Parts: sequence; C-alpha cells; structure tokens
Amino acid sequence: MPEDERAIRNLIANWLAASRSGDLPRVLSLMADDVLFLVPGKAPFGKAEFAATSAGMKDTRIDGKSDIQEIVVHGDSAWCRSQLVVSMTWPDGKQVRRSGQTLSIFHKQSDGAWLLLRDANLLVAEAAE
Amino acid sequence: MPEDERAIRNLIANWLAASRSGDLPRVLSLMADDVLFLVPGKAPFGKAEFAATSAGMKDTRIDGKSDIQEIVVHGDSAWCRSQLVVSMTWPDGKQVRRSGQTLSIFHKQSDGAWLLLRDANLLVAEAAE
Repeated sequence: MPEDERAIRNLIANWLAASRSGDLPRVLSLMADDVLFLVPGKAPFGKAEFAATSAGMKDTRIDGKSDIQEIVVHGDSAWCRSQLVVSMTWPDGKQVRRSGQTLSIFHKQSDGAWLLLRDANLLVAEAAE
Repeated sequence: MPEDERAIRNLIANWLAASRSGDLPRVLSLMADDVLFLVPGKAPFGKAEFAATSAGMKDTRIDGKSDIQEIVVHGDSAWCRSQLVVSMTWPDGKQVRRSGQTLSIFHKQSDGAWLLLRDANLLVAEAAE
C-alpha cells in the first residue's frame, strides 16, 4: 500500500481511537486549523465549534467504525469515501446509532503529516431496534 | 482565473442550465460513467439510477442556483464546495426548496474535459413559507 494511503488510514484509525477514549486534544491535532465540517441542515462549522460541541459531550461514549471504500491521493491532496457507523451512549445509558457515507478531503503538510481539511458527513440516525 | 477552475465553473453552470431545461442527456454527459452520488439516508448511487430518477421527474421544473465557495485543483483532480439552492415545482404547482452544502470531486479526462466523479449532497428541505 502506498505510504500516503497508509498514513491517511492511520489518521482515520487514530481519530476513531481518540474519540473512543475521549481524547479531544488528540482528535483536534488530526485536523487542519481551517478544517470545515459539513452536515445536513446546518451551516459549515470549524475547529472551535467542533471542540466546543465535543467538550459538551464529554460524558457521552462515542464508538465509531469506518469502512474505507476508496482513498485517492493527488500530490499533497487526497479524498476519501467511507461508510461510517457511530454509536453514542449517554451517561443515562441511552444509545443512538448513526450511519452513512462520508466524503473527506485530506491535506499533506510541509512536514509530511496528513490532516483532515474538509469533511462531508451524511450520517443519519438508524431506526431504534 | 486559472483555466481548470473556469472549466469546472462552466461545467456547474452547464449542469444547472441543462437541469432547468430538462435536458437529461446533457446532464449525463457532464458526469463520469463511474460517478457516485452521496445523499443522507440512502446508499450511494450511480449514473443509471440518477438517469432513472430524473426521467421519472421529467414533468417537474428544477431550478438550481450554486454559490461556489471554493475550487481547489490538484493536477487532473479537483474538489469544490458550494452552497446550493434547488427549487422544484411539480406539475400541480406544488413547490419545494432544498438548500445546503455540496462537496464534489471532479476529474479531468485525457481529452482535457472535466467530469463530475463524486458528489456529496447535504441539502435539506427548507421550511415552507
């Protein structure tokens, strides 16, 4: 597997592991300062809003699984499509599962590290079982 | 403006104009054969399903306006983020407006023409007035 693709797969795995362990600083270190998150029904938002929302959910357990369907690298830019499932468990035990596709843009920094730059998240809540 | 960016802006303008005039063959000519459309709550779908859905809506008037927010070209690949508003008017006069962000990947063919390759569409229906 080409080195850049492996680096992006590692970034995604690290992101999910850091989310699972509630390590917000580590998650934030994996995105560009000018990252933008796109979700349905909301204006695009950046790193500060991501951090504030995550901090407000610090007692929520988040477990994500990403099935990477394609990664295409062009120089210092790459795009990735994946099927993502995220389970969220609130302190009271209530659970929600959201699933769907993501389309993400990654950018390679001058030091060789890849960071998330744009993320379109098309996840919707699954019907309760 | 760089030539590739202008070509992609033209493609988007042509797409919206062809949709407005109900020219499905022209819309289909602007996407790669292996295009994938991503929308919330649905599996990714390709050109054949796009064509079938559009053919089933041939009596619906579609008027889209795209506010392109960024286009970034890397060789023969480009990504584009835009704010899109689509008004649909059914034969009975009923109207729906959908708006939101799109994140799209374009690919430059060997003949120099750009085509849509991936399209994440985060539009949601606006509240009725």
